[in-house]
Amino acid sequence: MSQRIGNALIGQSGGPTAVINQSLVGVIEACVAAPQIGSVYGSLQGVQGILDENLIDLGLESPADLERVAQTPCAALRSVRKKPTAQECERVVQVFRAHNVRFFFYIGGNDSAETAHLLHQVALAHDYDLRLFHIPKTIDNDLMVTDHCPGFPSAAKFVAQAFLGDNEDNRSLGGIKVNVIMGRHAGWLTAAARLARTTTADGPHLIYVPERPFSLEAFPNQVQRALDTHGRCVIAVSEGIHDLEGNLIASSGDIDAHGNMRLSGTGVLGDFLSERIQATIGKGARVRADTFGYLQRSYFGVVSEQDALEAREVGRHAVRVAVGGEVLHGSIIIERRGTPSRYEAGYGVTALENVAQKTKVLPPEFLLGDHDVSEAFVDYLAPLVGPLPRPGRLSDLPVPRKLG
Amino acid sequence: MSQRIGNALIGQSGGPTAVINQSLVGVIEACVAAPQIGSVYGSLQGVQGILDENLIDLGLESPADLERVAQTPCAALRSVRKKPTAQECERVVQVFRAHNVRFFFYIGGNDSAETAHLLHQVALAHDYDLRLFHIPKTIDNDLMVTDHCPGFPSAAKFVAQAFLGDNEDNRSLGGIKVNVIMGRHAGWLTAAARLARTTTADGPHLIYVPERPFSLEAFPNQVQRALDTHGRCVIAVSEGIHDLEGNLIASSGDIDAHGNMRLSGTGVLGDFLSERIQATIGKGARVRADTFGYLQRSYFGVVSEQDALEAREVGRHAVRVAVGGEVLHGSIIIERRGTPSRYEAGYGVTALENVAQKTKVLPPEFLLGDHDVSEAFVDYLAPLVGPLPRPGRLSDLPVPRKLG
Repeated sequence: MSQRIGNALIGQSGGPTAVINQSLVGVIEACVAAPQIGSVYGSLQGVQGILDENLIDLGLESPADLERVAQTPCAALRSVRKKPTAQECERVVQVFRAHNVRFFFYIGGNDSAETAHLLHQVALAHDYDLRLFHIPKTIDNDLMVTDHCPGFPSAAKFVAQAFLGDNEDNRSLGGIKVNVIMGRHAGWLTAAARLARTTTADGPHLIYVPERPFSLEAFPNQVQRALDTHGRCVIAVSEGIHDLEGNLIASSGDIDAHGNMRLSGTGVLGDFLSERIQATIGKGARVRADTFGYLQRSYFGVVSEQDALEAREVGRHAVRVAVGGEVLHGSIIIERRGTPSRYEAGYGVTALENVAQKTKVLPPEFLLGDHDVSEAFVDYLAPLVGPLPRPGRLSDLPVPRKLG
Repeated sequence: MSQRIGNALIGQSGGPTAVINQSLVGVIEACVAAPQIGSVYGSLQGVQGILDENLIDLGLESPADLERVAQTPCAALRSVRKKPTAQECERVVQVFRAHNVRFFFYIGGNDSAETAHLLHQVALAHDYDLRLFHIPKTIDNDLMVTDHCPGFPSAAKFVAQAFLGDNEDNRSLGGIKVNVIMGRHAGWLTAAARLARTTTADGPHLIYVPERPFSLEAFPNQVQRALDTHGRCVIAVSEGIHDLEGNLIASSGDIDAHGNMRLSGTGVLGDFLSERIQATIGKGARVRADTFGYLQRSYFGVVSEQDALEAREVGRHAVRVAVGGEVLHGSIIIERRGTPSRYEAGYGVTALENVAQKTKVLPPEFLLGDHDVSEAFVDYLAPLVGPLPRPGRLSDLPVPRKLG
């Protein structure tokens, strides 16, 4: 016999992903089905919506509408980048109490886990019974404990398909191509470009991630070596690359509420590296730079099916754990099960403090020297991304020359 | 009874598209099937490969391999941006004669049509019998006579899906988003962003194309008006926008062999407009810019099926016309047939001089004021792009407030 405990509230926070709404819908449908939960509310713009008491009722949405929402990228509840002050945390608990919110689910990255952790501590201090869970999402894949983060495999698929096409573009017209990928402290998404290298001749020929210091002196030589070997060069570079002293190679100068430097939404790094190549390799070289930007997290129509499925499931699992009652707060994780040749996902929970504000970078075994990633990384990522298109090539059978 | 006339040669030229290899394969398979045609050769890197006598045999490729090539973006024969000199045109005719090339198919845009036109004139001057056809491709959609250009619908689909996602991203986090789209003289591809506007509240809220002069003075007011109406603003802007005097708003300074200013492969315009918005609307505004760049023409995995089909068919049609013998040179065109509610494509041919070096811009009936496009444009484009994903939204049913 399950007894009604109270109402549930859901928020989405931080940068969107292609599948963050899968998690939202996973939470909604599991809440609706749980007899321990009364109403299911959503907060518009994450913690900001709680402060403003700007809540909506999610329990009346039809399954068909929810399915359409699940398949739409970005935050259906709208999002926010906000770290609540101590006073604001008090206000949140007031709002929870007023609406008898006893279950709180916050879908976001490590900054959102920090917000969840703060709210949990304030609820404890007020002796307010609250089951509180952080549900992971981030294209950066930089959350601790979990094997990987929902949202990352779809972004990785977008990046891999972009490089698969861009490699053909570079093969068509030659020259040097720089592609700047999201990721300030961790190079997971940049490393995903590696999936596009279908033969040793194919790009990306150079991969630069923040886990290794970037040398502006060595860079032109590495490009020249790729040109000598392949006659062309495709480069994947994280927006967050920095030198030995930790200084960013290029940045916009903006700082957000969580103290993060804004790196996206500007072409500064790509243009800087292009100019650097032209200054060293020669003005005659064909050099182009693209900054993939927000398309990596929001593009509508390129989703990893495994990612969509897992994103839905972490939402459902959060509710399962919450109503189960053995663990009353934490962050949901994905565990890698199955065998190396047959990937399977499992779900679990870890303490909020293991995830809040921490960053998981690429481990050494996923890196190869200072400008490539390893086969072990490919083995890790491939089952999460699923099937990719493969290029077809002509045989290039030469016709004997007849003229001098 | 058909008699063997000679060999065929195919080249690809200019910027790649997602379906340019469909046209290549259409030509190859029709040539292989034509008794009038002997060997089927390809030139590596367009006209450059002819000058270097760098030819390959395409007649031995298996149908399965060709199908994989057709589905791969960018130029399988590799491409070039080169306008041959008078002396080089002589050399081309020499190479044609040495290899008994009597059919020449050049797949490209208006610069490539110009090259084809030059070669045709030199062949005529030498009394060299040559059936020569330009096969259209360009994501810019700026070729004269043809209803539209193969490659454009797939690029339009990529752009529309990018805006569909980006509109959700902007709805999630708010602020102002500038997206810079390819197109130096014509705004066709930028206008394609309009397909993402599924309700009047959705972006792109402002669309700027080169067909209308861009006013740096009026721009911040137009952005402010969109902010006042929608609380946020998504902007689509062509890389080639210019002021009343025709001066580009921002550019790289590079000039290519055909006299074109390089606009892509740099974030200059997006960053410039962002700074302009922040300088006028206020430093506090959240402004981001993305330059979609080469992904628009090379992304692997987003293709309009209608575009793929038509790109294949223009290749086949060129061979049909060439072996038919009634028209011996020209540029292949697509004609819009069927009814307004049921689009059908037909194929024809026009004179090379109608296409060479000319640019078709958006006609007045496809424009709406100086920062939008019309419903007539949507009607024109929608059947070419085919089905697009549609966003699902929550009902946002408010929960009554309980606190002050």
